[in-house]
Amino acid sequence: MGYELHYWPMIQGRGEFVRLALEQGGADYVDVAREPPDAGGGIDAMMARMEDEPLRPPFAPPFLVDGSLVVGQTANILLYLGPRLGLVGESEAGRIWTHQMQLTIADMVLEAHDTHHPIAVMDYYEQQRPEAARRAADFRENRMPKFLGWFERVLARNPAGPGYLVGDAVSYADLSLFQLVDGLRYAFPKASERVLAETPRVAALAQKVGRLPRIAAYLASDRRIAFNEQGIFRRYPELDG
Amino acid sequence: MGYELHYWPMIQGRGEFVRLALEQGGADYVDVAREPPDAGGGIDAMMARMEDEPLRPPFAPPFLVDGSLVVGQTANILLYLGPRLGLVGESEAGRIWTHQMQLTIADMVLEAHDTHHPIAVMDYYEQQRPEAARRAADFRENRMPKFLGWFERVLARNPAGPGYLVGDAVSYADLSLFQLVDGLRYAFPKASERVLAETPRVAALAQKVGRLPRIAAYLASDRRIAFNEQGIFRRYPELDG
Repeated sequence: MGYELHYWPMIQGRGEFVRLALEQGGADYVDVAREPPDAGGGIDAMMARMEDEPLRPPFAPPFLVDGSLVVGQTANILLYLGPRLGLVGESEAGRIWTHQMQLTIADMVLEAHDTHHPIAVMDYYEQQRPEAARRAADFRENRMPKFLGWFERVLARNPAGPGYLVGDAVSYADLSLFQLVDGLRYAFPKASERVLAETPRVAALAQKVGRLPRIAAYLASDRRIAFNEQGIFRRYPELDG
Repeated sequence: MGYELHYWPMIQGRGEFVRLALEQGGADYVDVAREPPDAGGGIDAMMARMEDEPLRPPFAPPFLVDGSLVVGQTANILLYLGPRLGLVGESEAGRIWTHQMQLTIADMVLEAHDTHHPIAVMDYYEQQRPEAARRAADFRENRMPKFLGWFERVLARNPAGPGYLVGDAVSYADLSLFQLVDGLRYAFPKASERVLAETPRVAALAQKVGRLPRIAAYLASDRRIAFNEQGIFRRYPELDG
């Protein structure tokens, strides 16, 4: 039996980091909430599965169901899937290092989200626009260069060369860095181009991942949801610059 | 040779989650930046160690040095230490679940931090006070009940009873939940008492962890830094209520 991914069906969001791993790993999976309700899909079914889980209820989507096991938290799902999908090396040191980068990606993803929701996650962007403008300025000027500069340094220091984050093979962290860069390019086209010009290894890695045959096929399919203004990365031109 | 913990010497901060695990695990460790500079300690030595790390440079403190291995990201350090210090079960399912809770604690810790820094992490609180007031209100009224309510549910559903988060033995996630509750009580004495009255299993677990002999001894020692207004949890009375 394949994996069940449970995530909001209308956005890439955090679920996309899992989708990319499942796709690159060639996994048999169902994106449950995108299935029709009469086939057990839809948001209500996802929420019921989450609330009713008797043993290990996830805090929020995304979560993965693998047989009797329910796994939540994006980075934790990737920690679980990595060895199963051949998306992480064999050594403990390599696995810990890959996960460390994934958690740093998660930190930056949250900061990208908070540019449009600095005050309250349940309120609308329109209710926190002046605050968002200030937070986005800090993100563009300080945080984006700091984070992407760190990944640039990591690539430069990889003893196997700057082709991948860890060793000489693709890991789930590479896929996630691609997604992060793709999201930044959508949300902050001006600022991200400026920063990526200073972090050429990061830009090259993102381009390479986007051209991996399975990833390219996925991106061209209708399984890839388009970026939009309900997700993490939103194009509000007033927040770019 | 023991572990080296590298973290800011003047605050509990994220390093405290690692300190508590090292203490409960009875580990041999040095809190490097708290040592005198002429013994290789101090902030400058920590920052140099971080920047100069040739293979796996951490993004930020805390980081752990274990022989030739450098491990960053708080939850990742605990993932690494857990099996070594007997602070996590043997099964993969148990380890993944423990880590999932640790990541959820980390999410709440960041949200607690952002109550006083909703706009820019490098600016002063005094430069973002009105925004902080709005964000703190959302944290007290929505986020704190949501997060602690989830931990209450997890404890209620533990088949081994509500004594610990996973099974019937203390894990690093229990230690971290103690620290989170302790910090909330410091920063938001009114709001946290209100929420903890509704989450009695969480309150009981925090009390029990604080009375574990090694944790109690640590808390009474001068190795425990007092809460203060440079850390994650800050007592600004105008943000409580």
